[in-house]
Amino acid sequence: MDSLAPALDAQKEALTRRYGAHSLPAAGPWNDTIARMLEHRSVRSYKPDVVPKGALETMIAAAQSAATSSNMQWTSVVATTDPAKKKVLAEIAGNQKHIEQCPLFLCWIADMNRHASISQAEQVEFETMPWLETFMVACIDVALAAQNAVVAAESLGLSTLYIGAMRNDPERVAEVFNLPKQAFVVFGLCVGYATEKGAGEVKPRLSQAMVLHHERYDDSNARDERKAHDEEMIRFSARHELQAGTWTQRVLNRLGPIKSMNGRERMRQALARLGFDIR
Amino acid sequence: MDSLAPALDAQKEALTRRYGAHSLPAAGPWNDTIARMLEHRSVRSYKPDVVPKGALETMIAAAQSAATSSNMQWTSVVATTDPAKKKVLAEIAGNQKHIEQCPLFLCWIADMNRHASISQAEQVEFETMPWLETFMVACIDVALAAQNAVVAAESLGLSTLYIGAMRNDPERVAEVFNLPKQAFVVFGLCVGYATEKGAGEVKPRLSQAMVLHHERYDDSNARDERKAHDEEMIRFSARHELQAGTWTQRVLNRLGPIKSMNGRERMRQALARLGFDIR
Repeated sequence: MDSLAPALDAQKEALTRRYGAHSLPAAGPWNDTIARMLEHRSVRSYKPDVVPKGALETMIAAAQSAATSSNMQWTSVVATTDPAKKKVLAEIAGNQKHIEQCPLFLCWIADMNRHASISQAEQVEFETMPWLETFMVACIDVALAAQNAVVAAESLGLSTLYIGAMRNDPERVAEVFNLPKQAFVVFGLCVGYATEKGAGEVKPRLSQAMVLHHERYDDSNARDERKAHDEEMIRFSARHELQAGTWTQRVLNRLGPIKSMNGRERMRQALARLGFDIR
Repeated sequence: MDSLAPALDAQKEALTRRYGAHSLPAAGPWNDTIARMLEHRSVRSYKPDVVPKGALETMIAAAQSAATSSNMQWTSVVATTDPAKKKVLAEIAGNQKHIEQCPLFLCWIADMNRHASISQAEQVEFETMPWLETFMVACIDVALAAQNAVVAAESLGLSTLYIGAMRNDPERVAEVFNLPKQAFVVFGLCVGYATEKGAGEVKPRLSQAMVLHHERYDDSNARDERKAHDEEMIRFSARHELQAGTWTQRVLNRLGPIKSMNGRERMRQALARLGFDIR
């Protein structure tokens, strides 16, 4: 009798849900934190129950504990529970009702206003500000922080959903929260308790054979691996009545026509109006 | 006698290490996953001990379990343990010896080659590709994935360090790993066991009063909060013999002179040569 057997079974099941039975990666060390991350689902249906007192502050403490490039701490967050604000944001996002439904909505901000204020107060020109690199670092900082907040939230039994569609109209989002110049909502995040229906199923991902390379990039297997993933996604899509059956079809639909960008091809101009110079 | 008292003490100690005794956020729900995230340190000194078998695959499974915008899965990873490769990367990064020292180094790639290949194979033009928005989404996807891998690694007792300096010379990094066009190493990541000296101390962050806004952005307290953080950082810097005593001074040093970018102001041109059209 092996007392580790149930744990190993649980690990294999988690990897099977994520990759499908035919694409299991090598089994490695495992624990509850990792098991919970493997269980992640993006949730689009929330109960009205509010988030526990102090959970937001705990999420932010986790977020701020993520690495930040050169300790510049580019991240700010605006939290809203206001139905009127969430209604406007849901409209901006193309009528995503879960934004209204979730009890707590967070806007994750690449905040260069904080640093611009220091430049002004100390009367030192910040020569490094108006560059793609600096803007990119700020966005990456924000993403690292937000993902820690998501892991913290999920460890508390909460669910989340990133809302990239805040970028459909960055200027209007900035107005909603009275943002200063050089503050940009990179994405939103729904937070709350999933309804039973909303909890959903773990979504399969591309095999590690396609994503993880050793010593040198090698995509000679990419076509076969993609076809295998497409097969897995056909079964997943059928169970969930999704229109695009395969992953390939989803990529074609999303990346083919420019209209699927919902105006975000004008991001550079929108950012310029928000005070970002991205050379 | 309150059996929760030791846990509450541990939580207060963790928040004190992260924010200083005078800037504690409201105490909220807590657990081991969160406690470990609060303990994060960026580690610059590694033991030679190799990473356990399967730990890389577990980290990648966690990474791929993070949310990915529209399920596009932009992330690829190249893992290297090769001393010769790590030596070149350490040089590119301005002689960061920990890159040579750590047993495992991961390069996190915004991989649009995967999708460009689908465009070619299916003979469908991808109109959404040559835009800042799409490039930004790919980088954000990579950051969300990498942060999950970091949380997984730290939950296994491993330490990590993000290496932004891979962007000092993206083209040379691409050569090292034989990357195709439209594949860009957003950052590197050292992975290994910290030496006793390298484990270091949790680094203080800006107070939540400065970072977390409710319903509207309000930085009227920013100057006072920054001064308080500067005081905290003076004590931290003295303990660690850091040159820039205050956070403000660190911001001035890092963002003032363009030379601190180490050439990264030429990112747009480097990306163009790597096949990225970022309109």
